Amino acid sequence: MSGLPVVIEVTRGPVVESRHEGIAAVVRSDGTVVDSWGDIDAVVLPRSANKPIQAMAFVESGAVERFGLGNEHISLACASHSGEKRHVETVRAWLKTIGLGEDDLECGTHAPRLQSTIEELVREGRTPTPAFNNCSGKHSGFLSTAVQLGEPTRGYIRYDHPVQRRLRDVMTDLCGADAHAFPYGTDGCGIPTLATPLRSLARAMASMADPSHLASRHADAAARIRAAMNAEPFMMAGTGRFCTRINAALPGIAQVKTGAEGVFCGMLPTLGLGVAIKMWDGAARAAEIAMATVLSHLGVLPPDQRDELLHPPVRNVVGLLVGEMRPARTWLG
Amino acid sequence: MSGLPVVIEVTRGPVVESRHEGIAAVVRSDGTVVDSWGDIDAVVLPRSANKPIQAMAFVESGAVERFGLGNEHISLACASHSGEKRHVETVRAWLKTIGLGEDDLECGTHAPRLQSTIEELVREGRTPTPAFNNCSGKHSGFLSTAVQLGEPTRGYIRYDHPVQRRLRDVMTDLCGADAHAFPYGTDGCGIPTLATPLRSLARAMASMADPSHLASRHADAAARIRAAMNAEPFMMAGTGRFCTRINAALPGIAQVKTGAEGVFCGMLPTLGLGVAIKMWDGAARAAEIAMATVLSHLGVLPPDQRDELLHPPVRNVVGLLVGEMRPARTWLG
Repeated sequence: MSGLPVVIEVTRGPVVESRHEGIAAVVRSDGTVVDSWGDIDAVVLPRSANKPIQAMAFVESGAVERFGLGNEHISLACASHSGEKRHVETVRAWLKTIGLGEDDLECGTHAPRLQSTIEELVREGRTPTPAFNNCSGKHSGFLSTAVQLGEPTRGYIRYDHPVQRRLRDVMTDLCGADAHAFPYGTDGCGIPTLATPLRSLARAMASMADPSHLASRHADAAARIRAAMNAEPFMMAGTGRFCTRINAALPGIAQVKTGAEGVFCGMLPTLGLGVAIKMWDGAARAAEIAMATVLSHLGVLPPDQRDELLHPPVRNVVGLLVGEMRPARTWLG
Repeated sequence: MSGLPVVIEVTRGPVVESRHEGIAAVVRSDGTVVDSWGDIDAVVLPRSANKPIQAMAFVESGAVERFGLGNEHISLACASHSGEKRHVETVRAWLKTIGLGEDDLECGTHAPRLQSTIEELVREGRTPTPAFNNCSGKHSGFLSTAVQLGEPTRGYIRYDHPVQRRLRDVMTDLCGADAHAFPYGTDGCGIPTLATPLRSLARAMASMADPSHLASRHADAAARIRAAMNAEPFMMAGTGRFCTRINAALPGIAQVKTGAEGVFCGMLPTLGLGVAIKMWDGAARAAEIAMATVLSHLGVLPPDQRDELLHPPVRNVVGLLVGEMRPARTWLG
């Protein structure tokens, strides 16, 4: 346990060109702090990093069984996907299954992540639709829950809609604090994102990793979600992505999820731990290395991925190796 | 003058979601520090922010007159352009004028900046070439200098090539320190980028802004470069870009240039000042706001651009205003 912050460095030649600072907490489900770096009582917006928690009410609702959904859909409900073909087609078929369509998604439309997907659309004369939104799986989960429970689907992104209220109920049960009292901002996809102390966010992840103290409906849903994240890692993110890679490599051992603005969360069920990280500047490149470093520190990072995930190369336009990114010596480097 | 660092905040709803920290120096050409925030003796890699300095030897060589070049070429030599049609076509015509072609550019090829340019290429079944590289104007300036001075063009990006050695000579004259002694890394476009104390980088910009103490060949070239940056602001960057906007709005008053990894430089000839900024995390979004804030602090930011440049909105996918970016109250907010 240490008060020193998370520091990730970016080198170029002999110089540390840039550096990123953040906070991280490794916590047990009873709230015991196993490791902490920086001020873990600072409040962060979890953004997409708590999508696995936001998928709980969907799984608990019975919608999965009623509509014959599987691991790919649960993984998509936890995902920030890249809008690749399988993501988009699965979301479209899923919406059809629950009697709805892309027009019912309130997340908006943005370009898919991969340049190759964008170019394919241009070549085919098509434009992205709401199913391409990285959050379309989560929103399909919200819609499925509303349909299953007989609630209006319109306005499901609003703070007072039962779908959103239920997310706060679950968060309250998992994190050991009253999530209804948290201030909130509006997320990229339009739903509220709750201002959560990093310590509480890590504890919620720990409760997902080790739900033995939770009501059985929560415990069963958490186990189901963890299994789906490992079973369908592509659906969590996409080609070449960190979440896809780690969740594929560590079945039963780790389930990680990225969020916008430098947030990263993880569940480590074999260790009974939850992890939450926030890089203060919002840099995804640093949050990934920070998560890999924490996984390595806890002894779960696959040895064959250590070098590439802890010290990713910096290359210039022609592909020359000109530097690296790494945890600083003052942290866990 | 203050030791407190530059801090830029990103809010979402009631929360400061992310924050960026950096250093900034405002210096006179004699080295007098007018304003400083953070440790301005820290060493930074200027990256593209010192392209105006790197254009000095090109202008001094006589290549502009010999090849009938104009403001658009000088501005391109100082540019990190977006690879829009006019940028690419001007570079191609320029290379032809000096008897060379895109194959002689050693900067490599990357995708152009704007999605619309990429989509246009895909629709036309074309792929980017070295002229699309944001540094292709600077490299065309290097090649023009080598041709003009009868030096080999091959290998002009190497530390020991006369073209690069000359850049260090100019930097030494402008910054008040021996640039040949600076450690260096390799820039994105393959040339050396010199590890420069921020204070010295700001002083070099001040020497460009107020070259009265310099040899007349330097003074004439600096005046010519400043004029070109204002006269052809589109060539400096491109559609919607910060450098284009500021250099268009403040002819004779300010010439600013962005660099990778959160560096920003500026010349303020009417005030006789040079500005250099480095955001430690490398965030361009923060470096732009920091430059706008320093310009405002010095009284040169156009009033009609204050709100948009000092407090740019944060919007979500559907365009809803969900937060803002701003200088922190602890700095100049």
